[in-house]
Amino acid sequence: MPRARGGIDLGGTKIQAVVVDGDSAVLGQARHPTPTSGGPADVAAAMAAALREAAQAAGVETAALAGVGVGSPGAIDAGAGTVSGAGNLPGWAGSFPLAATLADQLGTPVALGNDVQVATDAEVALGAGRGRRSLLGVFWGTGVGGGIVLDGRPWLGRGAAGEIGHMVVKRDGRRCPCGRRGCLEAYAGRAALEARARELHDEGRETDLFKLAERHGRDRLTSGIWARALEHGDKLATELVDQAVAALGAGIASAVNLLDCEAVVIGGGLGVRFGDPYVERIRAAMLPHLFVDERPPDVRLAALGDLGGAIGAALLAR
Amino acid sequence: MPRARGGIDLGGTKIQAVVVDGDSAVLGQARHPTPTSGGPADVAAAMAAALREAAQAAGVETAALAGVGVGSPGAIDAGAGTVSGAGNLPGWAGSFPLAATLADQLGTPVALGNDVQVATDAEVALGAGRGRRSLLGVFWGTGVGGGIVLDGRPWLGRGAAGEIGHMVVKRDGRRCPCGRRGCLEAYAGRAALEARARELHDEGRETDLFKLAERHGRDRLTSGIWARALEHGDKLATELVDQAVAALGAGIASAVNLLDCEAVVIGGGLGVRFGDPYVERIRAAMLPHLFVDERPPDVRLAALGDLGGAIGAALLAR
Repeated sequence: MPRARGGIDLGGTKIQAVVVDGDSAVLGQARHPTPTSGGPADVAAAMAAALREAAQAAGVETAALAGVGVGSPGAIDAGAGTVSGAGNLPGWAGSFPLAATLADQLGTPVALGNDVQVATDAEVALGAGRGRRSLLGVFWGTGVGGGIVLDGRPWLGRGAAGEIGHMVVKRDGRRCPCGRRGCLEAYAGRAALEARARELHDEGRETDLFKLAERHGRDRLTSGIWARALEHGDKLATELVDQAVAALGAGIASAVNLLDCEAVVIGGGLGVRFGDPYVERIRAAMLPHLFVDERPPDVRLAALGDLGGAIGAALLAR
Repeated sequence: MPRARGGIDLGGTKIQAVVVDGDSAVLGQARHPTPTSGGPADVAAAMAAALREAAQAAGVETAALAGVGVGSPGAIDAGAGTVSGAGNLPGWAGSFPLAATLADQLGTPVALGNDVQVATDAEVALGAGRGRRSLLGVFWGTGVGGGIVLDGRPWLGRGAAGEIGHMVVKRDGRRCPCGRRGCLEAYAGRAALEARARELHDEGRETDLFKLAERHGRDRLTSGIWARALEHGDKLATELVDQAVAALGAGIASAVNLLDCEAVVIGGGLGVRFGDPYVERIRAAMLPHLFVDERPPDVRLAALGDLGGAIGAALLAR
């Protein structure tokens, strides 16, 4: 029997760790908040702690794992085992030897990959994209990330492919958190949605979004808060999410017009929380922009949900 | 010495034929107008005539060629040797056995490929993209076509990849000749530019574009007419081409954000006619939208000019 493997999904707000068996079935998992202060060494320590907890839940020592994979934001040098320019993580502008640091603490080899790409690979290997030779993964969360699989293999370009969130859907359009204008993420990313909601609220527009957040003890508009506001028929939330769906439709259709891939899988915090009805809405919003509209790609909800990133990271340790 | 090969670029307005030697050097060429009436058989006859003329100029019999390649619009089935749905060609909605028909008339094997893709392959093999492992070819002409090379090989998707002209650059934007809204081609394609110029002229805007066309005996606004109008400082032409450059910048940057390719090559009727100064302007218009702007792709003018499509088609006959 192949040995168990570990996977860590390093996000801006949470660290999700899993231990899986040879068939990628989850044996144990743990979720920790990502440290908001300190530096890369503190983040690495929190990652090691999360994986140890997942291993404990699985009943194995981390040193007994065949290896651990990490899906990380920032620029990954898989060969060197370093991560640099992870702007959402504390003190992580420069390069940090994450693979060696974690391997030391866990007593097993560590492999690094791009967070969005490993989540995409997981959907192709095990989830909603199983059997697909070409696929676009769209991760609709704080930002809008993309992962590409072509001819059965990840396409990374020069290391930064898949930035679907920064495709332009409206020239001279809304300002994006990245500083540019008219990006898909400026209309669809949760951070941008929150900023826009606050702006409109400050201008006097009615919304329960911020009250809901306060009532649920959140200091930001989480996917759950957005979902609740939509359920309550909050007009501002509905309007902004409608715009997000329209922008996602245009942006994903543009990507499909370029790649002509077989399938699109939609995940991410908002994607998973909103679920199938919104995947259906995005599919409908894509259609008017698809150049070959008589055979649209298959558009599906990510099947691995919140754990996809960590399970995909564990694939790196095979 | 390897035998000479033939290449035919089948366009909506012209048929360009070349005969090349083993190093793809042009030994002879001919250009014929594309028939505007009749059907696929008439187009095939005109193609055969153009290639015979090119072979004659090269001093070889067509039957002595190692083979002939064809770059065609429409949906190509290279295995079956058929072209279907070539809407710009007379009576060519259905499927036509172009390879077998031409092979009969020319006495040599005929291979088919997508027109834009073979032009892109030619730039990678012999032109401005030489040595590039990943590249986007952008053909700025009547429409805006795109060809993709990834990992040194053409990426065709399910047969229709590369439709950069129908990436959305402005949601709810201008109507495109394809019927959709906000496509890059709606702002940059020559057909769309002409339609927009006529619309504004009819609304009373001053422009010399149509007078210039008449004076030069053209029934449409060719690339040369646009170039002349720009040289004369025609305000409307300048404004529309400025918008085209901005749209190309946003659209190409979007494609680069998704693919992270090493290089972009810009060809097509307008691209080749306007030349390096406009390639420079497009590069500048891309920059504000590039997500990884510290290492932009190399952006270059197509080196094979008008003959790129035909020379690329001849590569299919190797």
